[in-house]
Amino acid sequence: MNQKEILLNHGSGGKLSQDLFKSVFGKYFGNPILDKLTDSAIVESPGTHLAFTTDSYVVDPIFFPGGNIGTLAVCGTVNDLSVAGAEPIMLSTGFIIEEGFPLSKLEEVVSEMAAKAKEAGVSIVTGDTKVVNKGKCDGLFINTSGIGRVDQARKHISYGETISPGDVILINGTLGDHGMAILSKRNEINLHTKIASDCAPLNGIIQDVLAVSDKVRFMRDATRGGLATVLCECVTNREYGIRIDESTLPLRESVMGMCDMLGFDPLYIANEGKVVMIVAPEDAQRVLETMQQHPYGKEAAIVGEVVADHPGKVTLQTEIGGKRIVEIPAGDQLPRIC
Amino acid sequence: MNQKEILLNHGSGGKLSQDLFKSVFGKYFGNPILDKLTDSAIVESPGTHLAFTTDSYVVDPIFFPGGNIGTLAVCGTVNDLSVAGAEPIMLSTGFIIEEGFPLSKLEEVVSEMAAKAKEAGVSIVTGDTKVVNKGKCDGLFINTSGIGRVDQARKHISYGETISPGDVILINGTLGDHGMAILSKRNEINLHTKIASDCAPLNGIIQDVLAVSDKVRFMRDATRGGLATVLCECVTNREYGIRIDESTLPLRESVMGMCDMLGFDPLYIANEGKVVMIVAPEDAQRVLETMQQHPYGKEAAIVGEVVADHPGKVTLQTEIGGKRIVEIPAGDQLPRIC
Repeated sequence: MNQKEILLNHGSGGKLSQDLFKSVFGKYFGNPILDKLTDSAIVESPGTHLAFTTDSYVVDPIFFPGGNIGTLAVCGTVNDLSVAGAEPIMLSTGFIIEEGFPLSKLEEVVSEMAAKAKEAGVSIVTGDTKVVNKGKCDGLFINTSGIGRVDQARKHISYGETISPGDVILINGTLGDHGMAILSKRNEINLHTKIASDCAPLNGIIQDVLAVSDKVRFMRDATRGGLATVLCECVTNREYGIRIDESTLPLRESVMGMCDMLGFDPLYIANEGKVVMIVAPEDAQRVLETMQQHPYGKEAAIVGEVVADHPGKVTLQTEIGGKRIVEIPAGDQLPRIC
Repeated sequence: MNQKEILLNHGSGGKLSQDLFKSVFGKYFGNPILDKLTDSAIVESPGTHLAFTTDSYVVDPIFFPGGNIGTLAVCGTVNDLSVAGAEPIMLSTGFIIEEGFPLSKLEEVVSEMAAKAKEAGVSIVTGDTKVVNKGKCDGLFINTSGIGRVDQARKHISYGETISPGDVILINGTLGDHGMAILSKRNEINLHTKIASDCAPLNGIIQDVLAVSDKVRFMRDATRGGLATVLCECVTNREYGIRIDESTLPLRESVMGMCDMLGFDPLYIANEGKVVMIVAPEDAQRVLETMQQHPYGKEAAIVGEVVADHPGKVTLQTEIGGKRIVEIPAGDQLPRIC
């Protein structure tokens, strides 16, 4: 890297984050499990396979339409385990709290975490609290780590090793709700919209799908960097490409309107309750219908397919008949979205 | 709690931390595993028992004599697993970095983490990085979570269920080195001393002890709140007490001098490479000798015993022949020590 200081975009989940991983974390920590760069590590343990994941949450603001930092801290980690094909079983929580933070707000966050953990069927089994002096953090940061159990037959899902041309790309609903909900409440903006975050635990809908199809090739939750980043990572250094159709992308009018107004592309906006699935074509319809029957999948859609041409690239078929390459973003359009 | 805002001492590991747990975290997250309030959760998993722990590190300053925040982040979590009788196998890392933090310093921290992980024989298998705007955190915070394997025969160690009067209290070396090393480098003080943190991974010395004795009743690393806090927690609501002898406590002269000068009691000062063990009397000498043969145990000592009188209390036999009750502190004498 040429930079000598950390930039906000080193935390974006985009290209600069990858550079930071390679030049610092990977350089020192590198090992075959970490180097796979999936959100959950899959580790063999006697008699079973474990998925292990961690995420710190620094969202600004802490409370937003559709949830708060606690909703994210539980759902985000449950989702990272779930898209690895794992059944989430337990979480840890680490709180870093700013001196003077109101206890009533802490309790609101913690009660929401408990509610989401209950919904997802996971236990919070261990935790830690640190308090820093006023002005030394921004209210409240939360880390959650999680452990899940992986059926050996599903180990391949987190690596996408079985993806091949003809496979179908699905998503379980509308794009960009989380990012636009957060942005609408940022101090400098504070728009009056009805956009709420889509933050939700996805283990239920994912288990429903896995129960009807053993041909799910890959899953990933489309968080920081949005759908575009997931798909671009999927094709990097691969022998295939991905084509998506703009006309099929599920989008709320309110989100589309806000994106238009502010100059954002919803393909790159963070979601917190959306899973991208790549499925063998013969199972695509069944998976779509299963998603649509779940409360978190009513607006599920088939949005594209894996193609043999332009390997390593994601292309977007626009509504007016054009075609453009979807690039991995250097940084995030919105920092501190989760 | 009467307070309406978070105080620094809510993060101290002392009484206020316990109050916060009871009134907020325990109230919402409570479950039989979490409620045991050990540093590592012990969870049954098919074919094995897992220990699972998490800690966030917010030490100030980030670099100090004897290590940096990365030394703590790896050793602290390795030690939490080790004192649960577990063999640490893997760690996650979550970085929260302030925009503008020098990459060279990040690399120094990360390379130290890798070195300590190598020494402890654990892999860092998953991670996450968030960056927050300048002024929104204090340079660098790190969370590490860890998973270890627990031999079923050692499950009782983390709960101390088999402690009984006559058992012997040991510690593997000098008290208070870490706390005084940190304090000596705080901006407002910056003393010129040779005190270095004792920060070290304790899994090696603990495994050596467990290999020669199956009568280790309890272990705990004496971090925030020091030896006093560990012992007070040990006797809370129990039918026995603990008596320690001031004359046997291993203490460096430099640490003693600094404590005297600043009015601190080394019993309450944090350590990061010290394990307190409670051992059946017939094995005490063998455990002591095993500790003393390890590089991290050269100054190990027997410092007291479990007694039938004054149940629920820790008493200190002073060097001049007096006796005093050792109380659990309300808060820490030093915030942000780890």
